[in-house]
Amino acid sequence: MAIEFQHISKRFADTRALEDVSLTFEEGKIYGLLGNNGAGKSTLLNILTGRLCPDSGTVAVDGAPADSDAALGKLFLVGEKNLYPDDMKVKRALDTAAVFYPDFDRSYAESLAKQFELPLNKKINGLSTGYGSIFRLILGLSVNTPYVLFDEPVLGLDAQHRDLFYKLLVQKYAEHPCTMVVSTHLIAEVADLIEHTVIIRKGRILQDAPTEELTAACWAVSGPAGVVDSWAAGRDVFTSSVLGGLKTVCIRGGGTEDLPAGLERRRVGLQEYFISLMEEEDQR
Amino acid sequence: MAIEFQHISKRFADTRALEDVSLTFEEGKIYGLLGNNGAGKSTLLNILTGRLCPDSGTVAVDGAPADSDAALGKLFLVGEKNLYPDDMKVKRALDTAAVFYPDFDRSYAESLAKQFELPLNKKINGLSTGYGSIFRLILGLSVNTPYVLFDEPVLGLDAQHRDLFYKLLVQKYAEHPCTMVVSTHLIAEVADLIEHTVIIRKGRILQDAPTEELTAACWAVSGPAGVVDSWAAGRDVFTSSVLGGLKTVCIRGGGTEDLPAGLERRRVGLQEYFISLMEEEDQR
Repeated sequence: MAIEFQHISKRFADTRALEDVSLTFEEGKIYGLLGNNGAGKSTLLNILTGRLCPDSGTVAVDGAPADSDAALGKLFLVGEKNLYPDDMKVKRALDTAAVFYPDFDRSYAESLAKQFELPLNKKINGLSTGYGSIFRLILGLSVNTPYVLFDEPVLGLDAQHRDLFYKLLVQKYAEHPCTMVVSTHLIAEVADLIEHTVIIRKGRILQDAPTEELTAACWAVSGPAGVVDSWAAGRDVFTSSVLGGLKTVCIRGGGTEDLPAGLERRRVGLQEYFISLMEEEDQR
Repeated sequence: MAIEFQHISKRFADTRALEDVSLTFEEGKIYGLLGNNGAGKSTLLNILTGRLCPDSGTVAVDGAPADSDAALGKLFLVGEKNLYPDDMKVKRALDTAAVFYPDFDRSYAESLAKQFELPLNKKINGLSTGYGSIFRLILGLSVNTPYVLFDEPVLGLDAQHRDLFYKLLVQKYAEHPCTMVVSTHLIAEVADLIEHTVIIRKGRILQDAPTEELTAACWAVSGPAGVVDSWAAGRDVFTSSVLGGLKTVCIRGGGTEDLPAGLERRRVGLQEYFISLMEEEDQR
């Protein structure tokens, strides 16, 4: 049981949004889908849920074509954009979700609305950026489909509400195992949540691996510029930065256990790894 | 030389947006203005720049009333909302800024637009959330007024662009010392940038202190629930959480150097401190 993209390509006018993307989201995992603005993340999710047609390639959900009723009933996309009619209220949108998704947990959704202080009688289009995100993530947490895809779920949310969302996501996943795909720019905050990371850049898959594997062999080594440079010579340095006289290089591979005097090492987190990788690619 | 708010109050219909707020932004510092959605941050900044009138209280900029020309010429607010006409292009907005702000650095703004890949001939209202933020932060980095106020400058920005913005902010501050106020929900990312932190909650100032002081005496202590509970009894615990059998309490004050076997301590970061403080207040 899985979502399988095979050789998906998509152009918009003169932009190649996706190029020969093959990718699998397996059952029962939390995925991070990471990439800069314009990388193709939303295009990929919109193709999966039939909001966009690919130019070539196929998508299957548990073996059924993604545009079949069987497939669509298993998916829920918490998209960036709100697709509800202009005058629809939050309450009515919950009613509608309950009609289309038989496992939608209406009373849980209402309890979440209370926790996030989202008024049920507000018009969806009148919500602020943060409350619009809250409305959409409540749907995603309550829908109970086998696959739930969150596209920028925390846009505009304050730190306390983001923290609450991450806790609820983990709780939901523990109580009702499903496949979750989280596409987000706040990488550091989801680094401990996502078991598997997919990094997409300019329409191509750059990395597709267990999150731990990606950063396991990455270290940042800092010290006086001269000492760092002579130590780093010949090693796999993927980015470097200088602040005052202090130089930091990020390297892949071992050999950092026994550093010369004056040098320090620390682990590279997922967000720092991502930024460094993008900078390395920019310079190719 | 400073921005001084004295006893500012403001209501919107049945909401008290600000209540008796007195606050000083001194010259030559980077401030963080932190608070949840609806706390009053944007109201405060909009009152300062004359976009809103307070019900009571005064604001002065270097001694002059905030709504005087002398004061307004010293301030630039990178607001959440874009106030430009519907069909204005990025290029034309830079021309306009150069007219109103004599120290606006036009060629620096254009070089930033290139770095962030913001097309100059695009209409401002046609920009995505992320590029709208980029447009506004470029204005803020190029305007060279003595006081620059950033309200949610990184909304919708990807991690690489956020990283670039923080680097540019520090560089600007080093080369052209001024007062910067950054209001943001991405607290962890600015924790090392902001020298002084103001926390606002439900229209009132909750904390106003050097950033380091706020978290210096805060520790998170974790271990088996029973051991943590008996150790923490009588201490100033401001939040606690349980994950599996592991309990974590955040405490203020010392006495964590010599923990019983089985307990571990780590420093509480600014974002974690902020969230814990909000939770503590919610429970009052």
